[in-house]
Amino acid sequence: MIYLDNSATTKPDKVAADKVYEMLTESFGNPSSFHRAGLDANAEIRHAREVIAKSLSAENEEIYFTSGGTEANNLAIFGAAEAKKRLGKRIVTTAIEHESVLEAVNELEKQGFEVIRLIPDASGNISEEQIFEAVNADTILVSIMYVNNEVGSILPIECVRKAVTKAGAPALIHFDCVQAYGKLNIKPKKLGADLVTVSAHKVHAPKGVGALYIKKGTRIVPRTYGGAQESKIRPGTEAAPLIAGFGKAVEIAPPIKEQREKIKALKEYAVNKLLEIDGIRINSPENASDYIINFYVPTFMTSQTLVQHLSSKYGICISSGSACAKGKKSHVLTAMRLPDKVIEHSVRVSFSRNSTKEDIDALIKALSETVKQYPI
Amino acid sequence: MIYLDNSATTKPDKVAADKVYEMLTESFGNPSSFHRAGLDANAEIRHAREVIAKSLSAENEEIYFTSGGTEANNLAIFGAAEAKKRLGKRIVTTAIEHESVLEAVNELEKQGFEVIRLIPDASGNISEEQIFEAVNADTILVSIMYVNNEVGSILPIECVRKAVTKAGAPALIHFDCVQAYGKLNIKPKKLGADLVTVSAHKVHAPKGVGALYIKKGTRIVPRTYGGAQESKIRPGTEAAPLIAGFGKAVEIAPPIKEQREKIKALKEYAVNKLLEIDGIRINSPENASDYIINFYVPTFMTSQTLVQHLSSKYGICISSGSACAKGKKSHVLTAMRLPDKVIEHSVRVSFSRNSTKEDIDALIKALSETVKQYPI
Repeated sequence: MIYLDNSATTKPDKVAADKVYEMLTESFGNPSSFHRAGLDANAEIRHAREVIAKSLSAENEEIYFTSGGTEANNLAIFGAAEAKKRLGKRIVTTAIEHESVLEAVNELEKQGFEVIRLIPDASGNISEEQIFEAVNADTILVSIMYVNNEVGSILPIECVRKAVTKAGAPALIHFDCVQAYGKLNIKPKKLGADLVTVSAHKVHAPKGVGALYIKKGTRIVPRTYGGAQESKIRPGTEAAPLIAGFGKAVEIAPPIKEQREKIKALKEYAVNKLLEIDGIRINSPENASDYIINFYVPTFMTSQTLVQHLSSKYGICISSGSACAKGKKSHVLTAMRLPDKVIEHSVRVSFSRNSTKEDIDALIKALSETVKQYPI
Repeated sequence: MIYLDNSATTKPDKVAADKVYEMLTESFGNPSSFHRAGLDANAEIRHAREVIAKSLSAENEEIYFTSGGTEANNLAIFGAAEAKKRLGKRIVTTAIEHESVLEAVNELEKQGFEVIRLIPDASGNISEEQIFEAVNADTILVSIMYVNNEVGSILPIECVRKAVTKAGAPALIHFDCVQAYGKLNIKPKKLGADLVTVSAHKVHAPKGVGALYIKKGTRIVPRTYGGAQESKIRPGTEAAPLIAGFGKAVEIAPPIKEQREKIKALKEYAVNKLLEIDGIRINSPENASDYIINFYVPTFMTSQTLVQHLSSKYGICISSGSACAKGKKSHVLTAMRLPDKVIEHSVRVSFSRNSTKEDIDALIKALSETVKQYPI
């Protein structure tokens, strides 16, 4: 199998999988229990928290484990809106966020908040000016992703704190860093963030766990009520095996810079090869993350059919967009105002540190054959 | 290690742990992806859903996977209250629910709902009469646990549907079956339930996954917004490894009846041996679940210290109450109006199918020595 759908999910590193198994078979205690079995499991969580905190240049008590990116985004958005609702009603976000942000702010809009959704340009970029214009003194939340999951555009989140300060807004600042984590350096303090979402399964760790960074001193209202876990911000028996696996995967990941150089070369190779195929057109902006290439394929097969064809005939796994959208028309390419024809025949290739030139060669061969055999 | 804290968490069955590992290393695709890796993971979830549905005599589409019991309880309670808030404002529950129910209804009370908390008798039992008296025409939710997690009392949930019908209440009926699942037969339809919570890690499956049964046609409002997973009731990339492990653990569990006979004999043996120790007093009611014994130990050590002592000196794991409460004074024993002295020196032993007479013998020996060496 040739796996080039790493923005949907990555293959867990064997060391992380082994850690999960060890937790399941050996350190299976409830981390809240006072006996040895509990204390052992608790120590594993503490260690994982240190690893994740360090990866974000954050403090241990600023890391709150959740069941994944979707829960962390929901907690950040509803939690911030509830905490700040008396101070204003504007929420600034973009039209190209992940479903878990889009749908959360849609719900808040129904509840009476004013939602500003910034529209990208034709290449998928959002400008600093747009952010400065949108944030006003009534703004209580800015939620913007760092790297777009469908086209890879990198959003100018560094300017958000300045925009909030300039407007004199009471806003909390949330960055969905699911696609950026492990790929770009993320230092919430330096970025001026109050809330940062990361997910484990995009960084070679298991599905079912993620984390929300909450800046020390920042108050948000919990979404879940129960025991004392995660300082009552996110109660429930901790998914100790997943949390430990998450920590292990982050702990053993090669340095970001080293990975990026590899992926940059891989992307250049892939883009050049793709453009050799007649009619293929890159949708991703030039300054996008090197991990994601979104492109139009001139075949009569629509995206989803093409994905299935490449899988069944060639054993190649790529994507027709966000996995969470499951076949719906891409809201990202739509916001970029690409023609329907392009949107309907575009796919996403996404890399991980396991990706190779051979993977790309196989993809190029498959695509060449496909556009020849099944032209548009 | 002698593990007698199975109400806090159980040791995952090796077959379930192996399944998790297989998912992490082989079927790691995003279950929403259309390629082979995704379809494989999806098939595993579908199978697990069938297994869990069958275990509840339910239909597949009535099972919604969550991150655990706490999330399922929150989803049920807030989701029902939000869906029914226009029809009334009373919520009927008990004073001995799990923290995730207690704290959720506390929050709803702050929001203006009227919460009735039924008080148990001195043995931890709640009567049918109490339920009939509490439910009125203004009741929009009844949330009652099947088996209490601290003392094991079995609540008369079979009468709730009758009480709701008799009162002409618009109420949804929720049963927290976390401690009952896999131990008592739970058939939501027969029990008249609209919502039923179960958790994986209490039945030899991994932590980090649970499920909410939602009766077909019952509308509740989601707590999380995002992708299309779990019919949008609980979006977010599915924790496929955990879900598959949950399914496997339930699939290979011995018949409930067979387990119960074994545990019943074990409990009788344990109770008789415990009562031979001078001053020990059983707090659990006689008609309690056979899986849980709560008792007072006449030593100057308070519960938490005793738990730590038994762990460090004898390698025995028992509990001072609910793991989620982590050291707080037991609200269950308090509601039973036991004297403070009893509450402060009581512990819980809880069995699983892995428990043996030898485990109990070791516990009895340790307790005998402890009360002799450190009398009250």
